[in-house]
Amino acid sequence: MNIYRYEENPLITPADVAPHRPDFEVLGAFNAGVAEYQGETLLLLRVAEKPISEDPNIVKAPVFNVETQQLDILEFRLDDPTYDFEDPRMIRTRDKMEGFAYLTSLSYIRIARSKDGHNFTVDEKPFLYPFNEYQTFGIEDARVTQIGDVYYVNFSAVSEMGVADAMISTKDFVSYEYEGNIFAPENKDVLIFPEKVNGKYYALHRPSLKSIGNLDIWIASSPDLHSWGDHRHLLGIRDGYWDSGRIGGGAVPIKTEKGWLELYHGATKEHRYCMGAVLLDLNDPMKVLARTETPILEPEADYEKNGFFGDVVFGCGTIVEGDVVKMYYGVADTSMACCEMSLAEILQQLEDESR
Amino acid sequence: MNIYRYEENPLITPADVAPHRPDFEVLGAFNAGVAEYQGETLLLLRVAEKPISEDPNIVKAPVFNVETQQLDILEFRLDDPTYDFEDPRMIRTRDKMEGFAYLTSLSYIRIARSKDGHNFTVDEKPFLYPFNEYQTFGIEDARVTQIGDVYYVNFSAVSEMGVADAMISTKDFVSYEYEGNIFAPENKDVLIFPEKVNGKYYALHRPSLKSIGNLDIWIASSPDLHSWGDHRHLLGIRDGYWDSGRIGGGAVPIKTEKGWLELYHGATKEHRYCMGAVLLDLNDPMKVLARTETPILEPEADYEKNGFFGDVVFGCGTIVEGDVVKMYYGVADTSMACCEMSLAEILQQLEDESR
Repeated sequence: MNIYRYEENPLITPADVAPHRPDFEVLGAFNAGVAEYQGETLLLLRVAEKPISEDPNIVKAPVFNVETQQLDILEFRLDDPTYDFEDPRMIRTRDKMEGFAYLTSLSYIRIARSKDGHNFTVDEKPFLYPFNEYQTFGIEDARVTQIGDVYYVNFSAVSEMGVADAMISTKDFVSYEYEGNIFAPENKDVLIFPEKVNGKYYALHRPSLKSIGNLDIWIASSPDLHSWGDHRHLLGIRDGYWDSGRIGGGAVPIKTEKGWLELYHGATKEHRYCMGAVLLDLNDPMKVLARTETPILEPEADYEKNGFFGDVVFGCGTIVEGDVVKMYYGVADTSMACCEMSLAEILQQLEDESR
Repeated sequence: MNIYRYEENPLITPADVAPHRPDFEVLGAFNAGVAEYQGETLLLLRVAEKPISEDPNIVKAPVFNVETQQLDILEFRLDDPTYDFEDPRMIRTRDKMEGFAYLTSLSYIRIARSKDGHNFTVDEKPFLYPFNEYQTFGIEDARVTQIGDVYYVNFSAVSEMGVADAMISTKDFVSYEYEGNIFAPENKDVLIFPEKVNGKYYALHRPSLKSIGNLDIWIASSPDLHSWGDHRHLLGIRDGYWDSGRIGGGAVPIKTEKGWLELYHGATKEHRYCMGAVLLDLNDPMKVLARTETPILEPEADYEKNGFFGDVVFGCGTIVEGDVVKMYYGVADTSMACCEMSLAEILQQLEDESR
């Protein structure tokens, strides 16, 4: 696979984003959804901001308060035996180390705009900021599906009630309509197909399971984009592979002559995130035709290997122009990068490796 | 709350059910969905059967094999250090004690029929037996919603891929149509309302969450019973109460003048299961009007306190005749019982305790 990484990479870093309030610092501008709108490339950045702490013994957790419509800043002492602070992204209670109790940063969605796809200007204000009780811990990892002149943006809505997947719709990337939680918790990495197939909408999703099952990709169908059913297991993790720990949909599925091309992320149990490809039947996306044995993109560049959470490439959207697939992707949970790949080469790799 | 427990309780015990194959024994006939059909009361029993083991050092796990359409009987040695056998219901891997790797019994749905509601005859053959890859570990806890002359039966579909909620429809309780997985894993205790409210179907559901959130009741709406969306958190566990550990919908919601009456189960962290009541707005079931502080039914009778898994009352359906609510309920994960309560008294308790 020939990968052309942009010379300007990383395209957007935390230094390019002013915090939304002066007592916060920007940790990351990453995992952006992608849209083409009025001749521009829009990146719906996940901006993660952290309350500045002067006291190194204090860890702060920002929580959106629905009643006041403001953030509450909770404070925890590092020597509090109830909590574990080992993972810098979260605060865990020692008796439930599998999950988290609070997040140390607040994520929300901010738009970066570009005329050439290389040089971006970040909006001054957030586009999607927590606005209800399902988003008190933040809004993460937007994906954008354009259907006609409506852009459907879905994202992880994180709160103490769980991690659900919610949706808004917009026609102008200024105002939006809230469309509710479209997938019940615990679910992430929802990717809505850009058109109906045999009269139904389809979406990939990635439930996180408590009692049994892996972090695998499922697929569902819908009559109306709001309600989803006929849930089926689509793609599993693979022992001994680069995607042995967890997988999840990445970019909005790309329609090709060979089938629906999904660029997905896979990670090892040690959290090294790569991107791979899977091909789904054009007339029945619940049918897997081919899957790459090897990744199409691995963390190799310095900005992919080092950052807030290193060894991560995490694509959430593409722009396809003829044979060129421009994949915008988050790197190291910190910044945004872009690479170009040949659509024909990806399809060839799928064919070669699925023999 | 005046509770009239039937003198015949327990109405159905494992001794009343012949195993579906000679090398199995019946552990439980419990947690039945309830339907009225052609003048009879039908209980859609969850029958749990276990492969007989002659060797006390061997634990067996039955797994439905989709290819052969037969059960594979896996064998585990009690001294195998990889696994934990402390909970008799499951086999766990020692590095993932939160969940399970296999179940030691296979559950499926068998029908018991009665003309008087007290004396039941159990069908000779299963009604719903595992038939696809989502049910390899069994089918559990059916609920029945009658809409017109169609009975929709939803149940937990358990496999190594997760615990989803699936649905079939039937008009005669002999043949059925498979309607797919209607809720993605991990989810249980789905209760479909018996009619549309303001043009939409509604269902309660109970996601099991991995990273954050409690075992709480959520609600969703649907245009067609197959696809579900607009997921909202409805009812939470309560610290210090009888429902402090987990809750889940019990019986199909009952339409009353005061609102939709839901009889739900709640358990402590020590797994003592009681039944409580909650009242939802007639025109907007996503709105909670009242909730009982105290249970309406607690495990008190010997058959409720002792059994395969004691201290459990678990109602999955009711028959309402005027002021009489007949609640059929599983006891101690073993048998079925029935009690009668006054609808007016339940509503009065809701009013009194919600002041």
